[in-house]
Amino acid sequence: MIGVIRVLTTTNTEVLEQHGNIIANRYGVPVMSRCIPDQPLGIFNDETEQAAAPKIVALGRSLEAEGCKLLVISCAADPAIKQLRDNVSIPVVGAGSAASHMALSIGKKVGVMGITDEVPAVMKNLLGDLLVNSIRPEGVTNTTDLMTPAGREKATEAARKLMEQGTEVIVFACTGFSTIGLADVLRKELGVIVIDAVEAEGLFASALYRQLSNERSAV
Amino acid sequence: MIGVIRVLTTTNTEVLEQHGNIIANRYGVPVMSRCIPDQPLGIFNDETEQAAAPKIVALGRSLEAEGCKLLVISCAADPAIKQLRDNVSIPVVGAGSAASHMALSIGKKVGVMGITDEVPAVMKNLLGDLLVNSIRPEGVTNTTDLMTPAGREKATEAARKLMEQGTEVIVFACTGFSTIGLADVLRKELGVIVIDAVEAEGLFASALYRQLSNERSAV
Repeated sequence: MIGVIRVLTTTNTEVLEQHGNIIANRYGVPVMSRCIPDQPLGIFNDETEQAAAPKIVALGRSLEAEGCKLLVISCAADPAIKQLRDNVSIPVVGAGSAASHMALSIGKKVGVMGITDEVPAVMKNLLGDLLVNSIRPEGVTNTTDLMTPAGREKATEAARKLMEQGTEVIVFACTGFSTIGLADVLRKELGVIVIDAVEAEGLFASALYRQLSNERSAV
Repeated sequence: MIGVIRVLTTTNTEVLEQHGNIIANRYGVPVMSRCIPDQPLGIFNDETEQAAAPKIVALGRSLEAEGCKLLVISCAADPAIKQLRDNVSIPVVGAGSAASHMALSIGKKVGVMGITDEVPAVMKNLLGDLLVNSIRPEGVTNTTDLMTPAGREKATEAARKLMEQGTEVIVFACTGFSTIGLADVLRKELGVIVIDAVEAEGLFASALYRQLSNERSAV
C-alpha cells in the first residue's frame, strides 16, 4: 500500500481520495489516503505550513505503522518532507520535488503555473537555471476558481503566455490542477508538455512501490 | 516511437535492442533502437566519449527526422546530451540523469555501483551530498564478467558492502547491469532499493511519450 498524505482536513471521502484515485487509476497501485487534522483550509502560508509539519510527521508514522511501504506528501510545497523522512524508514515522495525531477529529466526550459505568486521553495531550488518564468492564472487564487469554463480559459491563457516567454515545459505548482484535469486540457489545446504534480509523484511512487512489494509484473 | 541511442557499434540485433526491449516490455511503449558507427567498444574514456559526441548528435537528428517523439541516450554518462538537446526539438532523456533524478525523488543515501572506478560526472553532480559511496564489483571491468555465477556473487558482495557503509539506495552507473537483470537479484537477495539506469530512463521516457503521442490510456 502507498500512503497518500493530504495536507488539508476533510471529512468528504471523495475530496480526501482525489489524488490517491488519480495515482491508483493511472498506475495500478493500491493507495490509502489520509488527511491531517484541524486544517480545513490546508497550507497557504508559512504559519499554516509550520502548524501542519508535526501533523504530517505523526500521520506518516501512523501510515508506516499501518503497513504502508511508501509515503507521498501530496502537496507541491513538499511540506515537512525532511522531518518526515527523518522519522520513518520507508521512502517519502513529495509532489513538488517529484514534478521538478521529472521536468529536469528532459532539460527543457520550465515555466511554473500555480495559484500563488511564489514558486514553492523546493521547486525553485531544484529547477535552478531551468526555471525561466512562473505565472498565476488571472483572478485565480484557489482551484475552485478554475472549475468554470471562464477559469479554464484563464488557465489556458496563462499557459500560452508562459510559452510566449520561452517556456518549453509547464510544471504545475499546485495539486489542485490535477483534480480538475487541467494538464490534458493544456496538452490538447496547446500541444505543450505538462508535468502534473500528482501524476509525477504517482510515477515515482508506483515504480518504487513495485520493487518494494515484489510486484514487478508488467507495468 | 521512442528513439533509443546505443553508444556502441553492433550488427547484432539482439544486442542492439537489449535496452529498447526492456523499455518496451516494461512500459508498453514502441521503441526504435539505433547505434553509433565505428565504436565497437563503445565509450570507455574521454577520448572515446569525444569521438562519439558528433555521432550521437547525427543519430539523434536522424531519429527525429524518422518521426521519433522522444530520444533516449542509453548510457549512464549521458554522453553528448547537451549537444543533442541543442540540435533537436524533441525531449532527450539520458540514463545517468534519469537514474539520479529517480534516486533524488526519495532523498535517501545513495551508493553508486559501476564497472569503472569513477562515478560519471553527470551523476556525481546531480546526486551531490546524497552520494555517500561508490563501488566496482571486485574483478569486474565489463558486463561480461558479471554474467557468470561468480560475477553475480561479486556484485552481490559489492552491494552488501555499500549497504554496510550507509547506502540506502543503490544506483547503477552502468546500463550493462540492466541487460543481466542484476537489479532484481539485489532487490531479492538484499531487500535493497535499486535504481536501474535503463528502467529509470524508460520510466521517464514512457510517461513523457504517452503525453506526446496523445496515448494517455491506463498505464
